[in-house]
Amino acid sequence: MSMTDPIADMLTRIRNASSVKHETVEVPASKMKKEIARILLEEGYIKGYDVIEDSKQGMIKIQLKYAGNGQRVISGLKKISKPGMRVYADRLNVPRVYNGIGISIISTSKGVLTDRQAREKGVGGEVICYVW
Amino acid sequence: MSMTDPIADMLTRIRNASSVKHETVEVPASKMKKEIARILLEEGYIKGYDVIEDSKQGMIKIQLKYAGNGQRVISGLKKISKPGMRVYADRLNVPRVYNGIGISIISTSKGVLTDRQAREKGVGGEVICYVW
Repeated sequence: MSMTDPIADMLTRIRNASSVKHETVEVPASKMKKEIARILLEEGYIKGYDVIEDSKQGMIKIQLKYAGNGQRVISGLKKISKPGMRVYADRLNVPRVYNGIGISIISTSKGVLTDRQAREKGVGGEVICYVW
Repeated sequence: MSMTDPIADMLTRIRNASSVKHETVEVPASKMKKEIARILLEEGYIKGYDVIEDSKQGMIKIQLKYAGNGQRVISGLKKISKPGMRVYADRLNVPRVYNGIGISIISTSKGVLTDRQAREKGVGGEVICYVW
C-alpha cells in the first residue's frame, strides 16, 4: 500500500493515529499530500500541520483534532481514485459525501479543491478521497 | 437514469425482468449494448439475444436464462463507470468480481472484453460493469 499509493498510506496513518488518540502523525511529504493537509486544516478536520524539511523528501507533521469529549473529528477517510483504478468526476458530478456532512477532495485543473469549491468553480477532476 | 445512462438502464431492465422470471427483455439498441449482450451470452449469463431493426435505433431482445430449479443465472449487475464519474483500470488492475465468480466488462482499445480477456491481452480500459 505505502509503496504503490502514498496518498492511501497518508490516509491510513491519519486513521490509525486518530483512532488511538495520538496528538500528531507524520507522513513523508509530497506536493499532493501538502494540498490534502491544507484542505483538512481549512475544513476543520485537523488542528494544524508543519512541513519539515530533511535531506530526503521531507515530512508533514499533522496535529490531529479531537472534540471536547475526546471524540476524534475525522470519522473516516477513504481513498477513491487509485493508481491502477482512476476515478474522474465531471463538473456536474463532483461527489457529495454523506449529503454534505463530509467532503470529497478533487484534483482539478484549478488546483486541489473540496467538492464544494469544485462546484463553485465549475470544474471536475480526479476524485482523490472522501473525508467525513 | 435511462436518459443519462443507457447502459445502466439496460442493466436495470435485465435485473428487473430476471427478478420476476420473464423469459425475455427488450432494450433500445446501441453498439456498446450489443457488445455487452454478446459477452453475457459468451459467458453463459443469458440464453441468447436478437438485434431487431426498426425505424429508429433498433432494439435488442435478450432471452434470459434460469437454472433447472428456476433460479436466475444472473445474481447481480452493477454499473461501475458512469457518465459523470468515469472509472478506468490499468492492465494490472482490471477488477475481479467475487474472486472470479463474476466478471467485469471492460471497454478497451482491443474491444469490449471480460476482465479475464483483458488480462490475457494485457490491456486496461473503462470499467463498464460487474456481472455475477
